Amino acid sequence: MPKHILLNAFNMNCVGHINHGLWTHPRDQSTRYKDITYWTELAQLLERGLFDGLFLADIVGVYDVYQQSVDLPLRESIQLPVNDPLLTVSAMAAATRNLGFGVTVNLTYELPYLLARRFSTLDHLTDGRIGWNIVTGYLESAAKAMGLGQQIEHDERYDRAEEFLDVVYELWERSWEEGAVRADREARVYADPARVRPIAHHGKYYDVEGFHLSEPSPQRTPVLFQAGSSGRGQAFAARHAECVFVSQQERGALKKLVSGVRDEVEREGRQRDDIKFFMGMSIVTAATEREAREKYDDYVQYASPEAGLAHYASSSGIDFSRYARNEPIRYVKNNAIQSVVKNLTAAGRERTVADILSQELQLGGRYPTLVGSASQVADELVAWIDDTGIDGFNLARTVTPECYRDFVDLVVPELQARGAYKTEYASGTLREKIFGAGRAHLPAAHAGSNRRDQREPVRKAS
Amino acid sequence: MPKHILLNAFNMNCVGHINHGLWTHPRDQSTRYKDITYWTELAQLLERGLFDGLFLADIVGVYDVYQQSVDLPLRESIQLPVNDPLLTVSAMAAATRNLGFGVTVNLTYELPYLLARRFSTLDHLTDGRIGWNIVTGYLESAAKAMGLGQQIEHDERYDRAEEFLDVVYELWERSWEEGAVRADREARVYADPARVRPIAHHGKYYDVEGFHLSEPSPQRTPVLFQAGSSGRGQAFAARHAECVFVSQQERGALKKLVSGVRDEVEREGRQRDDIKFFMGMSIVTAATEREAREKYDDYVQYASPEAGLAHYASSSGIDFSRYARNEPIRYVKNNAIQSVVKNLTAAGRERTVADILSQELQLGGRYPTLVGSASQVADELVAWIDDTGIDGFNLARTVTPECYRDFVDLVVPELQARGAYKTEYASGTLREKIFGAGRAHLPAAHAGSNRRDQREPVRKAS
Repeated sequence: MPKHILLNAFNMNCVGHINHGLWTHPRDQSTRYKDITYWTELAQLLERGLFDGLFLADIVGVYDVYQQSVDLPLRESIQLPVNDPLLTVSAMAAATRNLGFGVTVNLTYELPYLLARRFSTLDHLTDGRIGWNIVTGYLESAAKAMGLGQQIEHDERYDRAEEFLDVVYELWERSWEEGAVRADREARVYADPARVRPIAHHGKYYDVEGFHLSEPSPQRTPVLFQAGSSGRGQAFAARHAECVFVSQQERGALKKLVSGVRDEVEREGRQRDDIKFFMGMSIVTAATEREAREKYDDYVQYASPEAGLAHYASSSGIDFSRYARNEPIRYVKNNAIQSVVKNLTAAGRERTVADILSQELQLGGRYPTLVGSASQVADELVAWIDDTGIDGFNLARTVTPECYRDFVDLVVPELQARGAYKTEYASGTLREKIFGAGRAHLPAAHAGSNRRDQREPVRKAS
Repeated sequence: MPKHILLNAFNMNCVGHINHGLWTHPRDQSTRYKDITYWTELAQLLERGLFDGLFLADIVGVYDVYQQSVDLPLRESIQLPVNDPLLTVSAMAAATRNLGFGVTVNLTYELPYLLARRFSTLDHLTDGRIGWNIVTGYLESAAKAMGLGQQIEHDERYDRAEEFLDVVYELWERSWEEGAVRADREARVYADPARVRPIAHHGKYYDVEGFHLSEPSPQRTPVLFQAGSSGRGQAFAARHAECVFVSQQERGALKKLVSGVRDEVEREGRQRDDIKFFMGMSIVTAATEREAREKYDDYVQYASPEAGLAHYASSSGIDFSRYARNEPIRYVKNNAIQSVVKNLTAAGRERTVADILSQELQLGGRYPTLVGSASQVADELVAWIDDTGIDGFNLARTVTPECYRDFVDLVVPELQARGAYKTEYASGTLREKIFGAGRAHLPAAHAGSNRRDQREPVRKAS
């Protein structure tokens, strides 16, 4: 039996997310992002399609690298305006029972004590369906908005992230023991003080002394997502991540990447499949291949490759407006996303702005795009899984919510017919749905879970 | 016609809020606070009773002053554990249409750039029904958890708050002009760059350069709540607050307080009724006075005056466990809530721990408690309004949600029969519901709104 494909819908609390310009399509509803029913309806649609999760990206700065300006991002709504993603979750959780929620939060501008409580709160309110996509940010515009003056250097961002995670693991996994909450009305004991202890972290970047404010939630630690693919990013993923996003277009390179990270995961003492890989993908489908091609041709008319280029400029830190159309893009050292810079400037395959616009940004975004009948799409997805060792897909939106409805109505039954997709949700938390029954918490070999093995003796209540 | 009484339900994302110990009552449901349906059901109940708002308190530290320990707070669940209140809002907003939400956020541990986006996001998702209760914190335990080492001194907290508000007003009121968002599909223009500008704040405590990440929301600035009643707190309220919480037990003193703040409000160039006063109150009611007394006697058996004392100890910064039962409480200089310290140690009326326990903490909390038939309660509420010049009440929960259901079913019709309560919601945002039609935004005379009168000339888009 083929393995079941994992599926996230990839979205963001804004108008233009990945495939830029498509908000101008007459059927696109992304301008409703401020309306709570836009989110509850989307969540219900995804749950009907048995999606594992809705993944919400975020950015806390603006894309001002291209043309050194935000004029284009504002006109084209390139992730600007962008609202807070965490605040949509409880409405969607109330409207669903099984859908998971993976939400991006940049830890660089957060205090671990408060962020830990936010995720615990959502893990309670969703009954164990929350995940955290850990990012550290890379935009100068964000640093200026936060009062940092300038962006922290790439590797130091990971040093801070390591320490930040040490702190939140202590809060989530160690401050409140199992059984600490008794909620015993007759005995008049809500929590047993002997089973709750303060943490005391004094590190290079953070000083945190105190009790976690939240009692243990169904998963304790949210399911940990990560997307870094620099050397440092991969090491971080191998240690911490349970789900990883990848966006390689080339199968051989992707297979190598996946296998390499799994090797590192093993060296960390974890199992190779303790980490799941999701590949970013755009899909345009219809009843027949011809109709799918027609739909794609229709969509493309509304796409904005230049908006895609402006987005790409901030991801890579390279202002493409300074290049002539046919001038090869050269490596530029900067603080942006290292994998994007490397990918763009890899030796032997230098590209020009004209190449990027014509080869990669037809739909306004850089993800691989599948166009075809439901049957063709299903075959292709299964082939990607088989060829590369990834576990599932992060489906970027095109014209929304139509693209998700097409996928749910057309592709999901095809995948199910191939035995490559679940026919009902597994029970339990998001972590159990992804990794199996009995796996509500981080497994024992995970860096965060280890905290629970180093328990101090139970102290006496005074 | 008497003026319409404004009503907030006072609650918190935790088990024990104000009237401690009542979670042990067999009918109390506060231990369901982690369950999203607890919140959506509560919101719908309050909306049925035409409540103006649900007000959610918060605290980001623990109450470790009494006995220098958190053992009692844990056992009695004295606002510990406590989850994040903001994250419940979208679920409740999706389940209602008119109820407002006033949420406490301590600004001391927030970056203005991100907090501004959080409130804008909620103002969008609630369609203009969000309010912010501005607090600056006072707990040493919070400072240690945040890495500050020790609590910032009382008056400096207000200096920081003033500057913080300057920054968020710039983001909410000035970064995006009216009409900046065109969302014009044909013209392919989402926002007009000529009508969006960055702020550049460089102050003593904050440096913030950037564009507000959110487009203008229905209210722009959330309705501003505040509770400080020290000299500095009152000056802050006079300048910024639109709704103020008071908890004076004595009508003469309350009338003087209200009138004094309104005088200050006028000196700030605002109207006397640009600020609404809500008094904290616990109510136990039933069909007859006798049944109400019986219900109160039943509740009291479950109350924990000692838990109330532990809460009081952190509010005042005074460890009552160090006093003999009959020893008068003396003034102690500390960083806690100044009005509580002053109130407790006022010359000529020193009290002992025994006094406090017997006179104030019968229901485990310090708010005045009304016990009586619906008719008696309605008369008493109207009398408080008439005698003191306040505008409404903040109803603390006792046994929940029973206490709110009793109020909605019994007292609301009595108030309506007296013409003292609305019979349907006004349309519009929370600010319009409280202050009248056409008042979606801060009025021109408000310190935040002034920003919009100092507009720079519209810049040319590049």
